[in-house]
Amino acid sequence: VKIGIVGTGIVGTTLGDKLVSLGHEVVMGSRSAGNEKAVAWAAAAGERAGEGSFADAAAFAEEVVVNAAAGSASLEALGQAGAANLSGKILIDVANPLDFSAGFPPTLTVSNTDSLGEQIQREFPRTKVVKAFNTMTALVMVQPSLVPGSHVVFVAGNDAGAKTTVGGLIESFGWQRESIIDLGDISASRGLEMFLTLWVRLYAMFDRAPFNIAVPCA
Amino acid sequence: VKIGIVGTGIVGTTLGDKLVSLGHEVVMGSRSAGNEKAVAWAAAAGERAGEGSFADAAAFAEEVVVNAAAGSASLEALGQAGAANLSGKILIDVANPLDFSAGFPPTLTVSNTDSLGEQIQREFPRTKVVKAFNTMTALVMVQPSLVPGSHVVFVAGNDAGAKTTVGGLIESFGWQRESIIDLGDISASRGLEMFLTLWVRLYAMFDRAPFNIAVPCA
Repeated sequence: VKIGIVGTGIVGTTLGDKLVSLGHEVVMGSRSAGNEKAVAWAAAAGERAGEGSFADAAAFAEEVVVNAAAGSASLEALGQAGAANLSGKILIDVANPLDFSAGFPPTLTVSNTDSLGEQIQREFPRTKVVKAFNTMTALVMVQPSLVPGSHVVFVAGNDAGAKTTVGGLIESFGWQRESIIDLGDISASRGLEMFLTLWVRLYAMFDRAPFNIAVPCA
Repeated sequence: VKIGIVGTGIVGTTLGDKLVSLGHEVVMGSRSAGNEKAVAWAAAAGERAGEGSFADAAAFAEEVVVNAAAGSASLEALGQAGAANLSGKILIDVANPLDFSAGFPPTLTVSNTDSLGEQIQREFPRTKVVKAFNTMTALVMVQPSLVPGSHVVFVAGNDAGAKTTVGGLIESFGWQRESIIDLGDISASRGLEMFLTLWVRLYAMFDRAPFNIAVPCA
């Protein structure tokens, strides 16, 4: 199906490659159509890959748009994508509101009593926001077998049907259904985003990014 | 050895029971000596168990004091325990700065750019604060086999020797050495405490508390 991606960083291109490889058509959206990175990605990714503005990507999407912009840039990028182009569609929000302005480790630009996922949902009330994938590095999102053993991917959002659709997409990436944990409504984005503060310390400790968490329960 | 516990809630008494069962002498500290819960605990826990004020518990400790007070009450309780009684000793901080004043799920009273662990370390610079155990329910702390498979316990603190001592205590509780993850200095308390925002959502989803996280890495 036709999917739009907002943001041309490593997360956006990694997800774009996977979606194209699964047979989807993908438009990679940038601030301006013709962005060098997006053009290079689309050329390399083949005939089902295209590029354009944020609005082009959102308008192209039949049902699913991915927010892979930087957390600090997400609300502006989605504003440029346009509420009308996002209306009625599912927005998979994989972004994290990280603030690197004081170096490493980063802090969060929003946390505790609010989250980026909630901010996006409030800003685009006609869009079905599903927080997903933000708790791991990009390569693990599309290649879960990279991490040994069982480990999990969280989804959170207000629309059950949207979470079912996103769950299907996640399964198509190679995740087992039992590894997909539905944490409830979009306010669970707080915990999912605040986990990044632990993630960056784990990253520093392991000195590499392909790890993930499992949640064994008695 | 002689250990003091600050706080008579479920965490304090669960840890106290385990420590007594391992042969340690434990004084359970309350706001005032003679606290009903502490007296009942000490009577049930046997001859190696005692009770007293926060200051009594801290003064009794040879090397290790446990902060098992509520997060919102920790700084005041430790102030009553007394800087002199804590000086030169290891303080295992298992508390979480949860604010339930607006109901469930709780928010944090401190987060993002600071943490309770750091606040305590700043307030008691001559004490070696080690954040540990705060990412799981009390029963899992002392009975890790309750949760299936491998799962982890984090430690963070500025003093390497203190973390080694705490690691030995953790191992004596039944944890494998490779399950103890050292996240670095006390500022890692931010991530460990902010994880609670995800923990409470996992708790709501599982509808029970004996779970924990594993961190498989490629």
